[in-house]
Amino acid sequence: MFKKILIANRGEIALRIIRTCKEMGIKTVAVYSTADAESLHVRFADEAVCIGPPASNLSYLKISNIIAAAEITNADAIHPGYGFLAENAKFSAICADHKIKFIGASPEMIDKMGDKASARATMLAAGVPCIPGSDGLLEDYEEAEKVAQKMGYPVMLKATAGGGGKGMRAVLKKENLKAAWDSARQEAGAAFGNDGMYMEKLIEEPRHIEIQVVGDSTGKACHLSERDCSIQRRHQKLTEETPSPFMTTKLRKAMGDAAVKAAESIKYEGAGTIEFLVDKHRNFYFMEMNTRIQVEHPITEQVIDFDLIREQILVAAGVPISGKNYTPNLHSIECRINAEDPYNDFRPSPGKITVLHAPGGHGVRLDTHVYAGYSIPPNYDSMIAKLITTAQTREEAINKMKRALDEFVIEGVKTTIPFHRQLMDHPDYISGNYTTKFMESFTMNEPEDE
Amino acid sequence: MFKKILIANRGEIALRIIRTCKEMGIKTVAVYSTADAESLHVRFADEAVCIGPPASNLSYLKISNIIAAAEITNADAIHPGYGFLAENAKFSAICADHKIKFIGASPEMIDKMGDKASARATMLAAGVPCIPGSDGLLEDYEEAEKVAQKMGYPVMLKATAGGGGKGMRAVLKKENLKAAWDSARQEAGAAFGNDGMYMEKLIEEPRHIEIQVVGDSTGKACHLSERDCSIQRRHQKLTEETPSPFMTTKLRKAMGDAAVKAAESIKYEGAGTIEFLVDKHRNFYFMEMNTRIQVEHPITEQVIDFDLIREQILVAAGVPISGKNYTPNLHSIECRINAEDPYNDFRPSPGKITVLHAPGGHGVRLDTHVYAGYSIPPNYDSMIAKLITTAQTREEAINKMKRALDEFVIEGVKTTIPFHRQLMDHPDYISGNYTTKFMESFTMNEPEDE
Repeated sequence: MFKKILIANRGEIALRIIRTCKEMGIKTVAVYSTADAESLHVRFADEAVCIGPPASNLSYLKISNIIAAAEITNADAIHPGYGFLAENAKFSAICADHKIKFIGASPEMIDKMGDKASARATMLAAGVPCIPGSDGLLEDYEEAEKVAQKMGYPVMLKATAGGGGKGMRAVLKKENLKAAWDSARQEAGAAFGNDGMYMEKLIEEPRHIEIQVVGDSTGKACHLSERDCSIQRRHQKLTEETPSPFMTTKLRKAMGDAAVKAAESIKYEGAGTIEFLVDKHRNFYFMEMNTRIQVEHPITEQVIDFDLIREQILVAAGVPISGKNYTPNLHSIECRINAEDPYNDFRPSPGKITVLHAPGGHGVRLDTHVYAGYSIPPNYDSMIAKLITTAQTREEAINKMKRALDEFVIEGVKTTIPFHRQLMDHPDYISGNYTTKFMESFTMNEPEDE
Repeated sequence: MFKKILIANRGEIALRIIRTCKEMGIKTVAVYSTADAESLHVRFADEAVCIGPPASNLSYLKISNIIAAAEITNADAIHPGYGFLAENAKFSAICADHKIKFIGASPEMIDKMGDKASARATMLAAGVPCIPGSDGLLEDYEEAEKVAQKMGYPVMLKATAGGGGKGMRAVLKKENLKAAWDSARQEAGAAFGNDGMYMEKLIEEPRHIEIQVVGDSTGKACHLSERDCSIQRRHQKLTEETPSPFMTTKLRKAMGDAAVKAAESIKYEGAGTIEFLVDKHRNFYFMEMNTRIQVEHPITEQVIDFDLIREQILVAAGVPISGKNYTPNLHSIECRINAEDPYNDFRPSPGKITVLHAPGGHGVRLDTHVYAGYSIPPNYDSMIAKLITTAQTREEAINKMKRALDEFVIEGVKTTIPFHRQLMDHPDYISGNYTTKFMESFTMNEPEDE
């Protein structure tokens, strides 16, 4: 087993990893920028090394500084967390060159899954469904018609130079294709000076549902069921839950099998997540694979009762996994608490936390690196805590989340606590009837006067 | 279902009950003495009624004030928590008289189990083993010999007027009985002017292991496995765990069956706990039944994944239980954090909490009613928090507890955090090889200099 792990990250995930290392009897090294000297990840690690100024490219992304910190402290492994260098093939390779175990994917794996075209080709080869589309640009209308016929309606026509919805047309049936083709080309040509078009299958009422997988060095993989992350704002997940309210036993089996097949086909080692879009007919399509731990991993931990960071470390140390797939019989929800003002277009609200009261009790988990007196630096992402509730049923987990949000007091900065509180009362959330479009029509109610 | 529940208690258990009520959509009424106006249970309830001055007999034990508070606020049920009026038959009866549902045992049940002799007789009638003993005082030495022969050695001779170990003799074999009889009588006569003696079976290397039961109004009961509460100081539990490291599948079945039989024989309704002493040969003997929720109920909740307070409320409202016995496949430990100085004979340390940082993350639960700025009143028991960790194995749960205790910061008062931290490193605790005598030989190591 590793003797000392350097955590090449900050914030709650750095603390998360340090906690598990402590529990496993592994020494830890925190690295930090000068903006993070007061963070709990620095206090709770056995050693801490300052690796640069606040700007990420001079600290948390600066490979040479991180490798130097690992060498100075004699760390025999590096855990990259998520973000920053977690999916950087060069960093993974440099760790290997320095005989430091990178607790994450190999450079080859990161490259293979990091490049969209190569990831898609790999998945198609493994028999995993991908969003059907034209093979590059469409030559002419005849080809458009042929491609649409082959993949089936509805389809989406997209201008290759497009953006902001311009040159984009949803086509629900064959009779509408010609008119859509003409008007989209004309619009794209006028807007971008480029009327090149391609086509993708239109995903109706899409949900973002991902499957957690773990693979080991023997080439074996298993899945730990799904997380529904459809509640997103500008592609940023806000809250996640497992099981997905949209899931069926049949769909879970199909998606789980596909995810395991995908992971085993590339001999994936470690914890990874395969993200899918699922349409209203419960067809699912590969989007991307994240070769790292996810922000939302705790909800999976809550329903499977074990520690995914520990699993990552064990797999990296060569310990084989049990290989058992997991179907949850509990329900867990995570709310990402960001220092943002939900009443003001989620504008970041860095500053000093003056009062902090953490919720607690049955079924409540809180992962946070902040505390009363902590100043949130403006340099990094605005997530300051993850609040997780777990219960026998979805309804109970929602009710638990409401009461935990009501108990949670953070003063000094604005947070997304009021957003989550309103979300938990939203009829479409309560019914589980939401898609990735949910936030496009969501508006905050005015705060109640105290 | 109840519309409004009054919680006739204070501190963490009042908050615990309020939390579940909120999650169930039931309104809550807190009652408080003037010493507790700043407690979280007052803040988090929907309504709060001051019921008197700090002295318990004028507030939390004052039945008329509590009934008046329930009537004023229109509460349709009262949850008594533990301690105070939780096992007060008169209170249970008065609630019934006022058509307020008492979420606890009936007056008859409380009386039956509250009186030692009647509880023992009830249990013997149900076939539950009790500690064998002489039927009252021993007439003479011949009777002593006969009783000892019948129950089997080792036995304990006890002076009826005894105390502080005087007039008490452990007798391991028959050959020693006469000498022990003579010397104990002489000692008791000299010390108390009363040389009456009785005899009990000597419980070798006793462990306190209790079985959680739940019964419903149909007369059905089930058990939720055991809690080992052997780590006690002057009969006060300090830390508890489930499963017991001493447990075997066979013993759990035998104790569980006995507990269910006991509960069903008296048609017990609600959550209750049957406390046993278990000797080194794994014989078990009924000690007492608590007809209420226990302080240490969260460790059971953690391994069974459901909410016992919710269960109490459902049963009180007439909902039948599933009736399934439960065998844990996780391990959970609770440390009671008291405002006491473990370096100074656990002397109470009331006062104002100036800094509080709660531990968090995977497998950590904290139940507390205190916060930074809260003043602990000197009037009540000194428990200020319950820290609970849960993991796949006992070893992991201990390691998680160590790191959670290391993270837990309470400044302004002394707490038992350092005691628990040292306990978790004690070889006899780690091996699970401890009895109710453990604390008699435990001494704190000096604090490390920072």
